[in-house]
Amino acid sequence: MNFKIIFNLLGLLLLIEGIAMLMPLGVSIYYAEPDTTALAITSGLNIAIGTITYLLTKKNNKSIGKREGFIIVSLVWVVFSLFGALPFVISDYIPSYTNAFFETISGFTTTGASILNDVESLPHGLLFWRSMTQWLGGMGIIVLSLAILPIFGIGGMQLFVAEVPGPTPDKFHPRVKETAKRLWGIYVFFTIAEIMLLYFGGVNLFDSVCHSFTTMATGGYSTKQTSIAEFSPYVQYVITVFMFLAGTNFALSYYGLNLKFNKIFKNEEFRYYSAFLLGFTILIGFFLWHSDQFQLEESFRHAVFQVVSITTTTGYVTTDYLQWMPFLWVLIFMLMFLGGSAGSTGGGIKIVRIALMIKNSVLELKRLVHPNAVVPIRLNKKSIDPQIITNILAFVVSYLTITVISTVVMASMGYDLNSSLGAVAASIGNIGPGIGAVGPVENYSHIPDFGKWFLSFLMLLGRLELFTVLILFSPAFWKR
Amino acid sequence: MNFKIIFNLLGLLLLIEGIAMLMPLGVSIYYAEPDTTALAITSGLNIAIGTITYLLTKKNNKSIGKREGFIIVSLVWVVFSLFGALPFVISDYIPSYTNAFFETISGFTTTGASILNDVESLPHGLLFWRSMTQWLGGMGIIVLSLAILPIFGIGGMQLFVAEVPGPTPDKFHPRVKETAKRLWGIYVFFTIAEIMLLYFGGVNLFDSVCHSFTTMATGGYSTKQTSIAEFSPYVQYVITVFMFLAGTNFALSYYGLNLKFNKIFKNEEFRYYSAFLLGFTILIGFFLWHSDQFQLEESFRHAVFQVVSITTTTGYVTTDYLQWMPFLWVLIFMLMFLGGSAGSTGGGIKIVRIALMIKNSVLELKRLVHPNAVVPIRLNKKSIDPQIITNILAFVVSYLTITVISTVVMASMGYDLNSSLGAVAASIGNIGPGIGAVGPVENYSHIPDFGKWFLSFLMLLGRLELFTVLILFSPAFWKR
Repeated sequence: MNFKIIFNLLGLLLLIEGIAMLMPLGVSIYYAEPDTTALAITSGLNIAIGTITYLLTKKNNKSIGKREGFIIVSLVWVVFSLFGALPFVISDYIPSYTNAFFETISGFTTTGASILNDVESLPHGLLFWRSMTQWLGGMGIIVLSLAILPIFGIGGMQLFVAEVPGPTPDKFHPRVKETAKRLWGIYVFFTIAEIMLLYFGGVNLFDSVCHSFTTMATGGYSTKQTSIAEFSPYVQYVITVFMFLAGTNFALSYYGLNLKFNKIFKNEEFRYYSAFLLGFTILIGFFLWHSDQFQLEESFRHAVFQVVSITTTTGYVTTDYLQWMPFLWVLIFMLMFLGGSAGSTGGGIKIVRIALMIKNSVLELKRLVHPNAVVPIRLNKKSIDPQIITNILAFVVSYLTITVISTVVMASMGYDLNSSLGAVAASIGNIGPGIGAVGPVENYSHIPDFGKWFLSFLMLLGRLELFTVLILFSPAFWKR
Repeated sequence: MNFKIIFNLLGLLLLIEGIAMLMPLGVSIYYAEPDTTALAITSGLNIAIGTITYLLTKKNNKSIGKREGFIIVSLVWVVFSLFGALPFVISDYIPSYTNAFFETISGFTTTGASILNDVESLPHGLLFWRSMTQWLGGMGIIVLSLAILPIFGIGGMQLFVAEVPGPTPDKFHPRVKETAKRLWGIYVFFTIAEIMLLYFGGVNLFDSVCHSFTTMATGGYSTKQTSIAEFSPYVQYVITVFMFLAGTNFALSYYGLNLKFNKIFKNEEFRYYSAFLLGFTILIGFFLWHSDQFQLEESFRHAVFQVVSITTTTGYVTTDYLQWMPFLWVLIFMLMFLGGSAGSTGGGIKIVRIALMIKNSVLELKRLVHPNAVVPIRLNKKSIDPQIITNILAFVVSYLTITVISTVVMASMGYDLNSSLGAVAASIGNIGPGIGAVGPVENYSHIPDFGKWFLSFLMLLGRLELFTVLILFSPAFWKR
């Protein structure tokens, strides 16, 4: 194991975090609020520690192996959160380090689960940093899911390698860099577009930027206590569209921006993604309207917003879905297991895995009728290697097993089934609001400290496609 | 499609049901209660219709193909329930045919979900018939899972073909007959042994027989309103042991009765099954004891009873587990998805599938570390064909997808998440009591008629390993 290169890269990334924190520091100085010192200290600390670590480990043989890669990926999220939590603690706005860490890793993993009872009491600098953790987390995840994980072969992610525009994977470095550059371009472009559309819709610049950061990351942190219910229908529609884009494979958006729409509509995952969203929106919208709780437009606006928000694992809300009839919030709860498209910033199980599993079940009937026929599973007209199916099975079984065991762990803290399952599903799926005691108008502050660290770990697991983290606990990984 | 042979076999089986019904008729005559006429009419009707159908279709070419087999298997359970419900309706003890059908198919599928608000108000003849539906259902399922489904290739069941003592599957008929004979022998032997042990423990003959019928079938119908809480600790322990046996692969019991214990302990599924039961018993027993709700012996008795009852999908209760702390009944709820061993009378997903899926997930980590190594999944030291893994994936995904969609259907009738999920999990898993409004001290009477027919269908689906029924809805099945 080349620990030097691990520290070297972590140092570099910590330096980047410190530099990134100069932005909220600027915001804080502009608003002249009491969080300036805390942000300045942390930024300086990150830059100092990052630079020193980087320089001390500079002389290394520069070879990043697969194993080093796994360790770096997991550690980046943890280290970023450990340091990123400091401004909240130092400024005393979130005095408990456990709470601050929870809020920060919930940001970097683009989860959006909060322990804040009153978001709006935070100064602008901290709110900006909170939103920015999600935006940075989203940037990280795009590179991870479209450039790094496919090389690692994690959870069937190799499926999407072919879809990523960029050079073939003959060398690690140039490929990652090239892909990252193109995808980040789209990410930044969409963010700026959303900022402009929100700003033109009457949202102030600060809120426009913060919400655009957390939309594109499918993070869901809002600067408002009532989340997107605070804003006009226009704003809600704009955010719906950008959540949809954030939950789409960024490689497809690349084609879209190059006007190759053909490629998009031919993509099976995109078709399933759109069909799921449309279907659930119509179903829920109809029943909301039927329930006389809302007018027609309002019913479908709330329906499409919540459906897109939960499916893409963003977690914004425009209304408390737990107040809907049980049938409807049970539907919303089911959506928590769907997740966005692969290669998007969305978390969860991901549409393509669900689609392939459903296909496999349907084909099973064919196999039973014609036991001697070879019936391969196809995606985008190409047949899928059985190894990938085993791979996806392993992913989904691990996902559900972890969900089940974690629900029992949460229940052992005295929570009922809904709240336990809700908190776990919302954490591992990187969604944010769950059901029960962690519903859309509640928060995670009442969870005991151990529970907060536990859920933080689930967020990390979910965000890094499980195996990236789990493999670090496997003896085979550490054996020479 | 050879419809003649289908009708011929169904006629024969209906005749058998009519003859079987002579037993409860005898009980009714002995107790001189008002259900005699109803049982006599139904028995006569079954014998008459069965005989006529059989004779009218006698001249057929006697070839049962696979497709005819699928249809017969599904139809037997439905036809048996349609006719088996009549005594309840004719005697007016269950005036609604929907309720009577629900109660009967819940019997034949060995589910044990009841719509009766007062079990003990039923006359002895009907109670005997009710228990007997489960016993007959159990007989059916043993042959189905160990002799018929492996030939069909349903849901990975071919895994157990090698385990079944009997001639090799060169011909359909002799194989099924020979296997059935041996396994039914064990089933009857265990039933008689339990009757004797219960009787010696002070239970009257009637209750001993009825409970032995429903134990060995992992059915769970009791003649007492409070289920097994009615009886002494001795009786509870005896029933625990026989539930354990009923949830064990009957092929293994065959080896056990031939004193080949070696074969049993080498069997991986049996080891997982025992380990799961032991682990959960200790966990739950410890916390029950710790909670000061029960004494030490009592804690572990309730723990082992509920764990074995739910895991084997029997559904007897000795105490209302919903009154335990949330953590503990959430554990019990999780067990509902485990199910008994393959080749037992238990329902659910089944231990061997769970075990193989967990193995696959663990191996996935190995595959990630050594991407070029071939890492096959092994069971009982033999490597498993990847086709079987795809097969199991299809089964489990279908199981969970149906559970999810059905939960939404139940929620649409106004039930909350716990009750909806509980009713669905308990029906498709052939368990009986669920959680929420269908908990262990509740029943299914309050569910709307549509819901009852819907849950009945789920019971059938679960009992017949999903694909046996689902294939009938597949266009490929009906194409020439």
